[in-house]
Amino acid sequence: MTTEVDITVNTRHEIVGEVTEVGSKVTKFKVGDRVGVGCIVGSCQSCHECANDLENYCSGVILTSGAKYHDGTITYGGYSDWMVADEHFVVLIPDNLPLDVAAPLLCAGISVYGPLRYYGLDIPSLHIGVVGLGGLGHLAVRFAKAMGTKVTVISTSPNKKKEAMEILGADSFLVNRDQDQLQAAMGTMDSILDTVSAKHPLLPLLELLKKHGKLFLVGAPTQAHELPAFPLLGGRKLVGGSVIGGMKETEEMLDFAAKHNVKPKIEVVAIDYVNTTIHGLEKTNVKYRFVIDIENTLKPSSN
Amino acid sequence: MTTEVDITVNTRHEIVGEVTEVGSKVTKFKVGDRVGVGCIVGSCQSCHECANDLENYCSGVILTSGAKYHDGTITYGGYSDWMVADEHFVVLIPDNLPLDVAAPLLCAGISVYGPLRYYGLDIPSLHIGVVGLGGLGHLAVRFAKAMGTKVTVISTSPNKKKEAMEILGADSFLVNRDQDQLQAAMGTMDSILDTVSAKHPLLPLLELLKKHGKLFLVGAPTQAHELPAFPLLGGRKLVGGSVIGGMKETEEMLDFAAKHNVKPKIEVVAIDYVNTTIHGLEKTNVKYRFVIDIENTLKPSSN
Repeated sequence: MTTEVDITVNTRHEIVGEVTEVGSKVTKFKVGDRVGVGCIVGSCQSCHECANDLENYCSGVILTSGAKYHDGTITYGGYSDWMVADEHFVVLIPDNLPLDVAAPLLCAGISVYGPLRYYGLDIPSLHIGVVGLGGLGHLAVRFAKAMGTKVTVISTSPNKKKEAMEILGADSFLVNRDQDQLQAAMGTMDSILDTVSAKHPLLPLLELLKKHGKLFLVGAPTQAHELPAFPLLGGRKLVGGSVIGGMKETEEMLDFAAKHNVKPKIEVVAIDYVNTTIHGLEKTNVKYRFVIDIENTLKPSSN
Repeated sequence: MTTEVDITVNTRHEIVGEVTEVGSKVTKFKVGDRVGVGCIVGSCQSCHECANDLENYCSGVILTSGAKYHDGTITYGGYSDWMVADEHFVVLIPDNLPLDVAAPLLCAGISVYGPLRYYGLDIPSLHIGVVGLGGLGHLAVRFAKAMGTKVTVISTSPNKKKEAMEILGADSFLVNRDQDQLQAAMGTMDSILDTVSAKHPLLPLLELLKKHGKLFLVGAPTQAHELPAFPLLGGRKLVGGSVIGGMKETEEMLDFAAKHNVKPKIEVVAIDYVNTTIHGLEKTNVKYRFVIDIENTLKPSSN
């Protein structure tokens, strides 16, 4: 008698596959369903956060990779040809989303969809800045455009302009080391979603915001940022953040992505390519997510 | 034909007095009214901020002291036996508020009342932290208590505990250099109002907040704070700020203070005492605002 679902899988914590077996108490899924597991595979399911569909903020959250599960075993993510998960933490992939395209939505997608929705950045009249054009940033552009907002990509790399505007559909592009461009855009944005995971100056971003504007961090550098108080006071601006999303919000995000054709740009690779892939990540020349095809490339374990 | 009001005054930009003369177009005041002028004496009165009663965020705001007025003259604040001001920036002092008690409300009072109201910290079920127990902090405690919240004072000085709890009415007191006290109070506060104007660690304050909690800065250090991203992400917390308030909100604050008997603790001094007073401020032994009695102590200028 379990509520667990067995699925075939690929990638670390953006895992998709087909249900191959269901526990006797499983009600949400049946064998053959196309499903996904994101960053979390467990939570206490009794606290205030869990009761409000915010399992991602539960103090007892269990991450899909590198955490201790209820039974004391370590979670290993998706580098495996099958996976067992509690149905509460499994989501159905909408029919018109290919599995490989759906995978990166389960972490990168929800990480940007969550704050865009929760903080009210999804109103068409708004001008939204997106800092960084990586896995999260490129999806932020596509989600924000699908929500009808005006989107400006803010990047250190001038050579990403064409990609940002022509491929991803951003309305404008700003090189954040170019003082003239920064100066011209000061006070023009309602909110900024900052996807960069390294320490960087927040002051120019705060200055890009209109009065009462809001800057949201979804990248988590190990070093603290420098936060000047003056723009927060003089402009009544806010700095906030968020991390992934709860299960209900993740389902909502997938439905939104399917309905509005929001897709990550991916490159499907074989499991053998993982080391090369990691090297590629370090050189930051990925556009934008590698998806590992476990089913067709992982040799069955001899155990 | 002016909209200006002549009043007798005291202090720099927390100025109170009686109307002694009114311009022919003045409609809000008559001679003899008890009035005040706070930090601002002018704004553009045509921008989006001004149209929304947020003159304090107008880019053309004119400060009461040390700014350039519309006519090009410099504003000198309240160190004078009379003052001329545009009636829009003059507020009526409610009958039951003594003038000397009302004065510090015009900057310190509105600086804390503003964020308590705007950010929704005025709900009786909330637990509010107040960092720093100076001019702003002691009024924050009194306003927050009058709004019905539970208030914890967070201070570096253990010797302020008795004052905070017995005189100002705080519910609890926390020494923010005491790791045991911090540890015990982690995750217990809904919002924190930080009145400290020097750089200090924000991380312990963010840790005192519940998930989705909010930290608001009303002190403006010249040095940037250090802001770790992790608590903003993992706890979906916010850091914001605000500066004084608009004219409408300042009037509302005075009415609230009068109705709920929120008063600053003041010490009335003679103009001759100003230099000694400033010395007292440096030694931080003021409780909590000196008010200069200009009317009775400033000798008329010989000009």
